[in-house]
Amino acid sequence: MNKAALTAEIIRKKSFLCVGLDVDLAKVPSKFQNSPTALVDFSKAIIDATVPYAVAYKPNIAFFETYGVEGMAALKEVIDYLNTKHPEVFTIADAKRGDIGNTSTRYAKAYFETLGFDSITVAPYMGKDSVEPFLAFKDKYTILLALTSNPGSADFQRITANGTPLFEHVLATSKTWEGSENLMYVVGATQADALKKIRTIIPDAFLLVPGVGAQGGSLEEVAHNGLTDEVGLLVNSSRGIIYASQGEDFAEAAAASAKRLQLEMAQLLEQKELL
Amino acid sequence: MNKAALTAEIIRKKSFLCVGLDVDLAKVPSKFQNSPTALVDFSKAIIDATVPYAVAYKPNIAFFETYGVEGMAALKEVIDYLNTKHPEVFTIADAKRGDIGNTSTRYAKAYFETLGFDSITVAPYMGKDSVEPFLAFKDKYTILLALTSNPGSADFQRITANGTPLFEHVLATSKTWEGSENLMYVVGATQADALKKIRTIIPDAFLLVPGVGAQGGSLEEVAHNGLTDEVGLLVNSSRGIIYASQGEDFAEAAAASAKRLQLEMAQLLEQKELL
Repeated sequence: MNKAALTAEIIRKKSFLCVGLDVDLAKVPSKFQNSPTALVDFSKAIIDATVPYAVAYKPNIAFFETYGVEGMAALKEVIDYLNTKHPEVFTIADAKRGDIGNTSTRYAKAYFETLGFDSITVAPYMGKDSVEPFLAFKDKYTILLALTSNPGSADFQRITANGTPLFEHVLATSKTWEGSENLMYVVGATQADALKKIRTIIPDAFLLVPGVGAQGGSLEEVAHNGLTDEVGLLVNSSRGIIYASQGEDFAEAAAASAKRLQLEMAQLLEQKELL
Repeated sequence: MNKAALTAEIIRKKSFLCVGLDVDLAKVPSKFQNSPTALVDFSKAIIDATVPYAVAYKPNIAFFETYGVEGMAALKEVIDYLNTKHPEVFTIADAKRGDIGNTSTRYAKAYFETLGFDSITVAPYMGKDSVEPFLAFKDKYTILLALTSNPGSADFQRITANGTPLFEHVLATSKTWEGSENLMYVVGATQADALKKIRTIIPDAFLLVPGVGAQGGSLEEVAHNGLTDEVGLLVNSSRGIIYASQGEDFAEAAAASAKRLQLEMAQLLEQKELL
């Protein structure tokens, strides 16, 4: 699905919510815990419960990869389910990949073609020729790490070169790359103070914003500083939704938690006169 | 296998050669090309042919991941083969992973436990809490990207902050992290000019050096500037070995190419009085 279709879905659902599928088998309801198909069954149940309120789903690849071949088979089932049962949602492989050119091409094929995701998160450390192979795919999106939500984001991303922090160099430089119209960026919700400045560098690009909820970011502040005339925001919540309850009512609790965020988002979209 | 055992193997084989398994099914000999087990069969043949001359093997995960579930099953077969048939070699998952703490823990489990690699390459952009979960594994090694061999390394890695390029900040800062004794670093052979300075910051750490051969780096210059009293170097060659011939003689050609590098390495080790 392309960016225009994503924006249309956001308006239709009055939501820019992305649900992060960081499925930890130690935290799912007990009825799933001894099942070999728990990763898939729990993910499908969460998707079906929350899809009225969410426009994007973000499987965290590490949580599948940690189970080896079976984990990757589960990931394939989850993305196939999203693409066939809910083709209107935007899918994000949260993979943080990036390598020299011919290797990045392989990762791009793995996620865009073999698995069929709409987008993938990519780390910028190796520069232009590590990212451009992802950008070469039409109607597929590369979500570049800019300023992440974790404490370690201060270690290198905020290092100042010529008066400008590294993450701003990443934003500005990446705009010059071939296929940059396919770029989106990760900016943590815990970094809302930086969002205004970020919007001066990339006024239109979509931002994927993790860190609302468990990590403590404010949705209102993110929306206030990050929304564009075409929305331009996806705000992710993982643990706050998928582990809203660990009881039998996990799906209802996940839906309620997603709905709460969606209602807040509808208000924020309305305030910006985007609905 | 731990660092001391790796150094002992280097002395025994008179080689610090790592063979990169970037298996491109379009480039393997035709007898493999229509086989569903080509990834595994070709990798095993290359390993068996080159193992007298190499101390480490580095499967490039993208080249397996691109084939989805089947590719990951092939990767599992290749690492199992290395661990059972050639337990004396050091194994590197060239994966360039890295994410927030609980996610990095999952990647570490995937590669150190589920698959059973000795080490993994990790990108530093997300900082301390994205790398320390890998360092928490005893006798497992985290090979942090410092200064890579590709052109894009100039985009951010060489950006200067307070008179010091970013990659030097990465080296210096990473030394302060919990478990830093388990760190190794990627430094491209095309960056041999920077190696002397790098050795003043990390005098003892093992370096994994790609970029000799196809990418144009000089083995002699790398050894001259990079060898330590305990060797401290692994030099990788991928395409120059695994595609030395695409004919029926691919295994003999790979062995000859690996042997050529090993003989040069033996001389360089001798010159440094390390044998």
